[in-house]
Amino acid sequence: MDLGMTERVKPLVGQVRRMIDEDIAPLDAEFHALVGTHPSGDRFKHVPRQLEILNELKALAKERGLWNFWLTGSDRGYGLTTVEYAYLAEEMGKVSIAAEVFNCNAPDTGNMEVLERYGDDWMKERWLTRLLEGEIRSAYVMTEPDVASSDAAQLAFAAKRDGNDYVLNGEKWWISGAGDPRCGLYIVMACTDPGAAKHARHTMFVMDADTPGIEILRPMQVFGQDDAPHGHMHLRFTDVRIPATHVVLGESRGFEVAQGRLGPGRIHHCMRAIGQAEKALEMMCKRGLSREAFGKRIADLGANYDIIANARMEIEMARLLCLKAAWMMDTAGVRAAQPWISKIKVVAPLMAGKVVDEAMQLHGAGGISQDYDLASMWTHIRTLRFADGPDAVHRRQVARAELRKYANERI
Amino acid sequence: MDLGMTERVKPLVGQVRRMIDEDIAPLDAEFHALVGTHPSGDRFKHVPRQLEILNELKALAKERGLWNFWLTGSDRGYGLTTVEYAYLAEEMGKVSIAAEVFNCNAPDTGNMEVLERYGDDWMKERWLTRLLEGEIRSAYVMTEPDVASSDAAQLAFAAKRDGNDYVLNGEKWWISGAGDPRCGLYIVMACTDPGAAKHARHTMFVMDADTPGIEILRPMQVFGQDDAPHGHMHLRFTDVRIPATHVVLGESRGFEVAQGRLGPGRIHHCMRAIGQAEKALEMMCKRGLSREAFGKRIADLGANYDIIANARMEIEMARLLCLKAAWMMDTAGVRAAQPWISKIKVVAPLMAGKVVDEAMQLHGAGGISQDYDLASMWTHIRTLRFADGPDAVHRRQVARAELRKYANERI
Amino acid sequence: MDLGMTERVKPLVGQVRRMIDEDIAPLDAEFHALVGTHPSGDRFKHVPRQLEILNELKALAKERGLWNFWLTGSDRGYGLTTVEYAYLAEEMGKVSIAAEVFNCNAPDTGNMEVLERYGDDWMKERWLTRLLEGEIRSAYVMTEPDVASSDAAQLAFAAKRDGNDYVLNGEKWWISGAGDPRCGLYIVMACTDPGAAKHARHTMFVMDADTPGIEILRPMQVFGQDDAPHGHMHLRFTDVRIPATHVVLGESRGFEVAQGRLGPGRIHHCMRAIGQAEKALEMMCKRGLSREAFGKRIADLGANYDIIANARMEIEMARLLCLKAAWMMDTAGVRAAQPWISKIKVVAPLMAGKVVDEAMQLHGAGGISQDYDLASMWTHIRTLRFADGPDAVHRRQVARAELRKYANERI
Amino acid sequence: MDLGMTERVKPLVGQVRRMIDEDIAPLDAEFHALVGTHPSGDRFKHVPRQLEILNELKALAKERGLWNFWLTGSDRGYGLTTVEYAYLAEEMGKVSIAAEVFNCNAPDTGNMEVLERYGDDWMKERWLTRLLEGEIRSAYVMTEPDVASSDAAQLAFAAKRDGNDYVLNGEKWWISGAGDPRCGLYIVMACTDPGAAKHARHTMFVMDADTPGIEILRPMQVFGQDDAPHGHMHLRFTDVRIPATHVVLGESRGFEVAQGRLGPGRIHHCMRAIGQAEKALEMMCKRGLSREAFGKRIADLGANYDIIANARMEIEMARLLCLKAAWMMDTAGVRAAQPWISKIKVVAPLMAGKVVDEAMQLHGAGGISQDYDLASMWTHIRTLRFADGPDAVHRRQVARAELRKYANERI
Repeated sequence: MDLGMTERVKPLVGQVRRMIDEDIAPLDAEFHALVGTHPSGDRFKHVPRQLEILNELKALAKERGLWNFWLTGSDRGYGLTTVEYAYLAEEMGKVSIAAEVFNCNAPDTGNMEVLERYGDDWMKERWLTRLLEGEIRSAYVMTEPDVASSDAAQLAFAAKRDGNDYVLNGEKWWISGAGDPRCGLYIVMACTDPGAAKHARHTMFVMDADTPGIEILRPMQVFGQDDAPHGHMHLRFTDVRIPATHVVLGESRGFEVAQGRLGPGRIHHCMRAIGQAEKALEMMCKRGLSREAFGKRIADLGANYDIIANARMEIEMARLLCLKAAWMMDTAGVRAAQPWISKIKVVAPLMAGKVVDEAMQLHGAGGISQDYDLASMWTHIRTLRFADGPDAVHRRQVARAELRKYANERI
Repeated sequence: MDLGMTERVKPLVGQVRRMIDEDIAPLDAEFHALVGTHPSGDRFKHVPRQLEILNELKALAKERGLWNFWLTGSDRGYGLTTVEYAYLAEEMGKVSIAAEVFNCNAPDTGNMEVLERYGDDWMKERWLTRLLEGEIRSAYVMTEPDVASSDAAQLAFAAKRDGNDYVLNGEKWWISGAGDPRCGLYIVMACTDPGAAKHARHTMFVMDADTPGIEILRPMQVFGQDDAPHGHMHLRFTDVRIPATHVVLGESRGFEVAQGRLGPGRIHHCMRAIGQAEKALEMMCKRGLSREAFGKRIADLGANYDIIANARMEIEMARLLCLKAAWMMDTAGVRAAQPWISKIKVVAPLMAGKVVDEAMQLHGAGGISQDYDLASMWTHIRTLRFADGPDAVHRRQVARAELRKYANERI
Repeated sequence: MDLGMTERVKPLVGQVRRMIDEDIAPLDAEFHALVGTHPSGDRFKHVPRQLEILNELKALAKERGLWNFWLTGSDRGYGLTTVEYAYLAEEMGKVSIAAEVFNCNAPDTGNMEVLERYGDDWMKERWLTRLLEGEIRSAYVMTEPDVASSDAAQLAFAAKRDGNDYVLNGEKWWISGAGDPRCGLYIVMACTDPGAAKHARHTMFVMDADTPGIEILRPMQVFGQDDAPHGHMHLRFTDVRIPATHVVLGESRGFEVAQGRLGPGRIHHCMRAIGQAEKALEMMCKRGLSREAFGKRIADLGANYDIIANARMEIEMARLLCLKAAWMMDTAGVRAAQPWISKIKVVAPLMAGKVVDEAMQLHGAGGISQDYDLASMWTHIRTLRFADGPDAVHRRQVARAELRKYANERI
Repeated sequence: MDLGMTERVKPLVGQVRRMIDEDIAPLDAEFHALVGTHPSGDRFKHVPRQLEILNELKALAKERGLWNFWLTGSDRGYGLTTVEYAYLAEEMGKVSIAAEVFNCNAPDTGNMEVLERYGDDWMKERWLTRLLEGEIRSAYVMTEPDVASSDAAQLAFAAKRDGNDYVLNGEKWWISGAGDPRCGLYIVMACTDPGAAKHARHTMFVMDADTPGIEILRPMQVFGQDDAPHGHMHLRFTDVRIPATHVVLGESRGFEVAQGRLGPGRIHHCMRAIGQAEKALEMMCKRGLSREAFGKRIADLGANYDIIANARMEIEMARLLCLKAAWMMDTAGVRAAQPWISKIKVVAPLMAGKVVDEAMQLHGAGGISQDYDLASMWTHIRTLRFADGPDAVHRRQVARAELRKYANERI
């Protein structure tokens, strides 16, 4: 169970880290400062400089071969293991636009995974190639406002067969990335057979984002922020018609696709959250050493040594758990690794949220302001306790796996 | 030690609760939806409808005699005790504009307290009367960006005597309410004698908000939100000249004024935070009963009973501690009550933050969105862990008071 | 809602505190050192000096009128309120034999309560008078080894009617006080109608402890300690025959009696646990000030200020919650106060356990040894998280009470 | 960084596990039931059957080659890595006498480590060989009652040079294993130069346990238990005279020896604590599935799924952290691994204590009784939060290592 940085990935980590520090970080603030400056007043439109920043950085990354690391165990990508990728994703977590620069950002990686694994050739040609090149972006359209989407069997957004087509109707929300004008692809989970068994009710569809009948109702806000131009959009589908060939894998197999997609997606978020915790701890230490109160360095006051030590210990443990879950994915497959993914899915956001919270507190009021990245890190991390399943659902999975060892009956 | 609702305050609580439910709550959402709609694009300007909402509600409150409850133990106010006021303030915490409607909002109450207790007659005439009538608003100008302001002795913003005047220079930030165009009064703590003993370095000044030389640099953001039009402003004073008569209480007595002001201010925040926790628990229960997943009401799933029970227990304990601190203020005075105020200052925001966090989690992704008040409640409550002294400083005060019981030497 | 120390109880608190400090505490260690020294080797027999210690102290307490405070709202006792009693019980918690010295110890107070409220006159004459005088002791025989006794409906220990008698068979364990040779009375809950509705299955019986057929199988150990000579005994009843007149209140009304008994019993434990926490905090402060490491007083090291402050805050909150529950009992009755009793039943042992744990840690290895009372305080407090219902059951009660406010259906 | 079970150690783990289940566990209860049955009444004397149990099991282990696994990286032992040993030690943690059966028990392993690394040849011949054979046992004599021994520089127990001898005087306590009649060797840390620099004040001595002048004052109790016949003894040395040749490594080098000894000792305790947590979780699951209340399996009630899931997650994280610390010891050496050992030293006992506490709670009152191993596991684990340095000291080490990365000055 080698959880260390391999010789192969070590130089890549160095290159990624350097490019983030030297090239990406300095432009990240500029990128965000430009949000909302489009002459139309539309926060979900980029101004040219924003696209320029992204495109130039992406070109640079591609040119250096720092691209599509996430595509583990595949010919199209780098051929890295998930364990190796973990070390890279952690670095990318530290600056908000970094993951996109290396074409390793959610939800695109998960969507590319869907096409790579389950897509027909025409789907790959039409969307996957362009996604792999970073030319378009995509969204994953699953969560619904009217039901507790953590129990996916309840999803009611309907797709009805009509001749050779399907007609889709309903609302979806928290569709991340659907605000971006470059978003070209939607992967949509819809209920095709509400009366079927729990895991055979849904079907997964692919379609262009500009398919007629799809309407963006509003951006969802995260603690008051719209995360423009990426966005988490609330969509309405009205009689959206698409050919039956747009079904992924097969009718009634939506669950299977979703499960295959969500495992890697969940752990990638965790890897980046660990990177953010690491960054917050560094900020906390530097602040603690550079600021004084009551005649002492802040680090030397009160419980701050304990706070720093606890942060360090919790980060290390979460990282090791993340690496072990990654190793399980590499060696036993995503399905067998599910309880491990659930574990880190619970642990990493809680840990990172706590470390960032302590870092904010040690920064005083500045810590929650625009002067530091801590507040936006925190709000992003907080969303991860819902995204791809709330903590409670994942804890339940872990407990069931544990109890099953000893039970004769159904758990 | 009567901590209950007195016969005198019981009908007031009923009236306030009713007015909040029937009159204020329905307009609160409208008020906030109008933020940022001023034709100038200036988020810190009200549109007429916003002022209309506030003014009509304030007129109604005044007409009903629901006004200035906070002014405890004084002829000018209602003559309530702090314990009695606690029950009213808790209700006002539940809707964001409610406290202002009853003229009980921070930072005005603290500023009125300063004028009432320490102000010269001319100050009272010029500002207090209008504040008590709700005609103007005010700001308290203390915190500085360049030092850990929790150690107030470090505050370096300078006031230099020049003949009959003082000349003020420096920066202040997190000046809450200074964004509001109606803000007419600044109470400013400035360093007049940096070489003096720790508690004799500073002097408190009053001045019109539009005194020449004061510049608003930017609004500070709280988790990305500017809280417009109230705002938490970053100010720069450049050669701001005011007559020496504007000194409150006397040169070098800034600390004394600050201490007298901060005690009540701190506990009022706590009272309202408890109200917010109570509201969050109600939302959590209702959601738990009305939404289903995995074939059960959400309330019946996982650890939710424990979460609800813990919330109820923690709210009750925090409320009782708040009432006891209030009772100490009423019976022993603000100074003697300091360790009690420190206790509740630590406890209430932590408790309320935790309850609101759990309520968000139980609401799923909606919980952090604009569809519920929970996210904005949470971010506001989070600021209270810094405002008027961070948790660490207050814990330190509590510990020192405890150790002093047994120590022969200085603690 | 007066939660303060009344003028009536204030001098009593002073007297009790003084008697504990001056008379009881010095003999407490001697009493415990004599455990296990009986020539027979039987740890559950007193040596004469042990009885002498208890009897002399009890006589002194009686002589001073410091006796039976717990009997609230009754002619036979002091006529104190439960709130008043709380202040006395807290003091008694600080030294292990103190509660018995004032005839205020569990389980006797609960058993006397049963006789006082529900007992026939002959029962009062035969047992209550002697209990009130402190001449005998008693045990409450409810918990069973073979079922989760927290769900009392499951209790299966059987009493079968046979003519004018009942015949009892089965095992009971954790029967506190049954080890004491002075234990003269058993109050026994038995299942008389297993097929009846949940709360009508059981009946409460009173009987002499030496009724033939009752056998002590073994003492239960608490973390390896047998708590001799008091003891928590495992009993077996074999064809124990008693007349039907020994039924308390009426057949099938065992639940009603148990509920009436357990409310006060639970809160008395909490009152004493708060006293123990208070004592542990005092020990923690004194140790922190008197011992040095790394060139500083221990109190000044690491997170100790925060630990002390948190202990102080949590004690205050638990005390206030306890007083409020007591006030509810006084004003609304035990039944209406149940959710409040459940709250403090969860809160007080957890809080006290935590404070004592921190005090042990601050004492170094000595803290868990026989050199300080902390370890035995901790183990005793740990039992309270099971005694009279585990935390989980009480949290459940609190949650149900909360949800019921908003539910139309059964919670 | 291979943290997995190697092919080499896998069969050993299987053999050890099997021998524990089949041979050791059934005799463990018998061994403990015999404590205190020696006709002399001396709890620190074995009855013949106790020695028979130990000797037969040890002979069996030796015969099977399951012996001295702990001696990592040495010719004399098995040649295992610390990572490999971790998997074995975890199993040994599950039954109290198991570690001794495989000659892998504290404090002997640490003491053998001292002799192996720093001992002169004559010391090895006289004591190490017999210890390696399991013929004698030993004690490490460091902690003192009169100072906070966590700051080892304070240790004041004195050794004075007198010609070719040293004369030792003073008290030591918590000397684990010194109660065992088979204890033949003491390794004693004494102050030889109180005026020297902090880390040059002490010298390490070896001596026979029956050296004249050493007196056992009393056994220290852990939550009331004396852990006989092993014991944690309080010793007094009165003019104990030993030749200067008994100095280990050299005068004034006591610290160096202590540091070399404590690293492995600390992590071995952690490995075993993880095994105990694993066992407690298994007990918790089995109990949860086999017992019912309120019409459900206990596992299905309240927050129990969450409790089980949290236990599983925390165990995995602690185990991974332990393995990483072991790997650091293997690859970078004990000294470089110190901050990692500190991390797991804080984490493992806290985690294990929490898991065992939850397991006790789920077992109801039985959980703290003699009917399950949980209570004795808990009290043992609680001692680990002091043993070899309290949590606070290790957190401090972790924080200092962290801050040093960014500091120019001394931390």
